[in-house]
Amino acid sequence: MTVENAIAATGITLPEPPSAGGNYISAKTVGNLVYLSGVISRDEHGVITGTAGLDRTIEEGYAAARACALTLLAVLRRHLGTLDAIHEIVSVNGYVNAVAGFSDPPKIINGASDLLVEIFGDKGRHVRAAIGVSALPRNALVELQMVVAIA
Amino acid sequence: MTVENAIAATGITLPEPPSAGGNYISAKTVGNLVYLSGVISRDEHGVITGTAGLDRTIEEGYAAARACALTLLAVLRRHLGTLDAIHEIVSVNGYVNAVAGFSDPPKIINGASDLLVEIFGDKGRHVRAAIGVSALPRNALVELQMVVAIA
Amino acid sequence: MTVENAIAATGITLPEPPSAGGNYISAKTVGNLVYLSGVISRDEHGVITGTAGLDRTIEEGYAAARACALTLLAVLRRHLGTLDAIHEIVSVNGYVNAVAGFSDPPKIINGASDLLVEIFGDKGRHVRAAIGVSALPRNALVELQMVVAIA
Repeated sequence: MTVENAIAATGITLPEPPSAGGNYISAKTVGNLVYLSGVISRDEHGVITGTAGLDRTIEEGYAAARACALTLLAVLRRHLGTLDAIHEIVSVNGYVNAVAGFSDPPKIINGASDLLVEIFGDKGRHVRAAIGVSALPRNALVELQMVVAIA
Repeated sequence: MTVENAIAATGITLPEPPSAGGNYISAKTVGNLVYLSGVISRDEHGVITGTAGLDRTIEEGYAAARACALTLLAVLRRHLGTLDAIHEIVSVNGYVNAVAGFSDPPKIINGASDLLVEIFGDKGRHVRAAIGVSALPRNALVELQMVVAIA
Repeated sequence: MTVENAIAATGITLPEPPSAGGNYISAKTVGNLVYLSGVISRDEHGVITGTAGLDRTIEEGYAAARACALTLLAVLRRHLGTLDAIHEIVSVNGYVNAVAGFSDPPKIINGASDLLVEIFGDKGRHVRAAIGVSALPRNALVELQMVVAIA
């Protein structure tokens, strides 16, 4: 089954991919790697804001990380034409807007990792880092950066 | 027009490239990519210090990010001999020393992105992430990391 | 002398490599690069926790960064079979759990850089970034991410 078919089968709908808000671009192919700009957590209501350990729970963070991954897939579909062009997910860097001492960034970034494996299977397994930071664009709860390999 | 000519035409002068302060190096070529160490914001008076949202404005941050990009170009010129060896800018990671909840890291990192496009044109467009962090070396206002592709 | 022999000669023992705690993997080879997941600081007693500038000194941070580098080498040995397969260390990103305004992340990440050069010599010299962040997994003092090139 192709990835596009897998997405259709799950009923997952990708969001509209965002435009870059400055002199940068959303995706760049170099050789067989596609580098992606960091995207912030959004849903149909707008930016998912807040701070883990302050006014946001781990569950809300998990949903925000999943939303970031969906946005990155939307960016990739626009960039590549189809997600079936992706050979594998290489790396994910997840940044969580968090209070000092918040010890669960991984439980939040799991929202992205789980989605990628749900859609891509073993090829969706990636290396990653999960970091808590003091400030993200538009006060987003999560920012996610990714590199993927194409065939 | 070559990039070196473009820089000369704008009157931009690159700073002296910094030396690595430990057991690491400023730049490393692997295949057709050049990976660069993070550099902190400096001008002719020394390190540009401070914290966005506390004692530094967005405009000061923008200038600090631009200064980082100039420093990275100086590192690249030393590493490659000439900036004309650069095929394109691939990625920029910008870290802003920021108070918790500062929502404008992108407006600061634009200082780097705008400079890269000013000098390299479309080949200067890159993917990027803009993150606010609690602490940077020597209390710098901005740290910038970059990857470029060579011909 | 091979790297494995060099390690044996120094008496350094690598720790047990950690398992990935979710839908991600510890290492992934793409072309001649091996990307590694971020690892947190641990020793034989468990996670090395704490915050630089609050309850941890630079010396404790240096030891924690060195411990992260040892863990990453253990991951690489498991992934590649032998550390002799490594051609060179490419990049290191070091994140330090730090109070706002802590100005010495590089002195802490030197613990990793020094170890890599101790073991790999000139091939261990890498590009790097050292960043202070507000929160790391399990309240770890240091998290380290690395990319290496293989022959």
